[in-house]
Amino acid sequence: MCSLPVPQEPLRRVVVTGGTHGNEMSGVYLARHWLRTPADLQRPSFSTVPVLANPAATALCRRYIGRDLNRTFTNTFLTSRATPDEPYEVTRARELNQLLGPKNSSQAFDFLLDLHNTTANMGTCFISNATDIFAMHLCHHLQLKNPELPTRVLVYRLPKEETYSLDSVTKHGMSLELGPQPQGVLRADLFSRMRSLVSSSLDFIELFNQGAAFPAFEMEVYRYLGCEDFPHTEDGDLAGMVHPQLQDRDFEPLQPGAPIFQMFSGEDMLYKGDSTMYPLFINEAAYYEKNIAFIRSEKLMISVPALPGLTPTPTPLT
Amino acid sequence: MCSLPVPQEPLRRVVVTGGTHGNEMSGVYLARHWLRTPADLQRPSFSTVPVLANPAATALCRRYIGRDLNRTFTNTFLTSRATPDEPYEVTRARELNQLLGPKNSSQAFDFLLDLHNTTANMGTCFISNATDIFAMHLCHHLQLKNPELPTRVLVYRLPKEETYSLDSVTKHGMSLELGPQPQGVLRADLFSRMRSLVSSSLDFIELFNQGAAFPAFEMEVYRYLGCEDFPHTEDGDLAGMVHPQLQDRDFEPLQPGAPIFQMFSGEDMLYKGDSTMYPLFINEAAYYEKNIAFIRSEKLMISVPALPGLTPTPTPLT
Repeated sequence: MCSLPVPQEPLRRVVVTGGTHGNEMSGVYLARHWLRTPADLQRPSFSTVPVLANPAATALCRRYIGRDLNRTFTNTFLTSRATPDEPYEVTRARELNQLLGPKNSSQAFDFLLDLHNTTANMGTCFISNATDIFAMHLCHHLQLKNPELPTRVLVYRLPKEETYSLDSVTKHGMSLELGPQPQGVLRADLFSRMRSLVSSSLDFIELFNQGAAFPAFEMEVYRYLGCEDFPHTEDGDLAGMVHPQLQDRDFEPLQPGAPIFQMFSGEDMLYKGDSTMYPLFINEAAYYEKNIAFIRSEKLMISVPALPGLTPTPTPLT
Repeated sequence: MCSLPVPQEPLRRVVVTGGTHGNEMSGVYLARHWLRTPADLQRPSFSTVPVLANPAATALCRRYIGRDLNRTFTNTFLTSRATPDEPYEVTRARELNQLLGPKNSSQAFDFLLDLHNTTANMGTCFISNATDIFAMHLCHHLQLKNPELPTRVLVYRLPKEETYSLDSVTKHGMSLELGPQPQGVLRADLFSRMRSLVSSSLDFIELFNQGAAFPAFEMEVYRYLGCEDFPHTEDGDLAGMVHPQLQDRDFEPLQPGAPIFQMFSGEDMLYKGDSTMYPLFINEAAYYEKNIAFIRSEKLMISVPALPGLTPTPTPLT
């Protein structure tokens, strides 16, 4: 699969979004704070726009009103004709596409960072398309800058025409997940960590804009493999729960035969896969409606090519 | 204030309720489990009815549909005439009052245990009216039975005509709070602990029914004093969050001058009270809509009188 082209010019138009899911409070309150005091987001070579992505869901402290906004940025939704009874989030996705895109166009913003929380014990995790070399360098920069803080990277590899998340609307982008934090709760420790990570991300863009080059590197990432469903009764109700030995063990290796569910009847259900797997988003509240108990991933090393420094724009002769 | 009379006869009609708040998952799934397999709740001298208290809110995984069910068991609501546009929970409160009460009547169930979760770091906490000597003995029994597990008791002292919670409908009752657990998440550790505490509660009732007497004792309890509101901006939005030094410190003493909020602007807000206080339900998700950051309580020792053994019913002469 081809990589996204790296930027050949300074990034001038950057956006930070919170409240894409209206009950993930770190991003909701950071976006609101920056809308009142935007100076925090300014850098010498560019300015950053804060956006509250799903204001209707945020007002009700719900993930979404009609459908998950962060699955609505497909070409199909973005180019569909508006109808009176469409879900709120379809209308809102088109608005955001007009504001920050249009997707796949030269008018789109240069970079988008979308702020999320999870109830799972995910710590600090960036989610990015592995083909976006610029985003991979940003993740690596943050890892080097915060060696005391495990900063994981979850990658997917989707062709641009199949992407569906908010960060696919701009030329480059990724999302940041911090957890664990209950839905509807704002924890000061996660708020401060998110604020600091956003600030460091903007500093990286400033460095790049100033002409810095970044060498190639090897990076450990987790790659999405699929979803593990909850066990169910015949009438569709939950028959068990995430096993206490698995709970809170996101990013730790899970071996075939290890317990993954504790049934209400008492017995354990074991992992039937045939190789080591890395479970992520274990027991995330928002996934119950999809019957997902956790995400399966593999851990691998990827090689990320160098990010060349920008060539200074020649000053026109006078 | 007068104490509730202690039972003079065996408790024959006991009810355990889950899902009074539809996104507090331990009780929701325990109630559903017991509705399928009610044998767990049977004891030699009595049987226990499991009830899913708010099925409509549970189906949507929300705390409530129209208003908080657990504030709706006042005489005013229970005796009001039904109207077509009343909140769902007012209708449901009347149904539950018919099923389990009527409140303050001799037909009411003997005992009710209402199962809750909190996003706060409350551990195991029973909430009871301090005038209910039978409930206080049950709490004390569970403390003695689980010395390794801190089991706190939060008391209020309301005259019966001012009570509003589901457990006020029956002759005796209390609620059990387990935390921390995010709304919409079912943790196996808390599920197992709640199941075990319910089982031990039923065992205590069985002991009492079999004629056991329980001596007087002194007990440490936390008494509700009031609510501490979040700081707000002039336009009503949050201006800060629970201070990281206070987060997760439920039941620990808080001294005047200690930081309680961290403002988004950076400075700390200090506790202005003039004596040591014990904060509870710190940063509970459900309290944001009421602007409550935590509950203030005082810690005190109370004397609970003996619970006399039942006099065996004389066998009629034939």
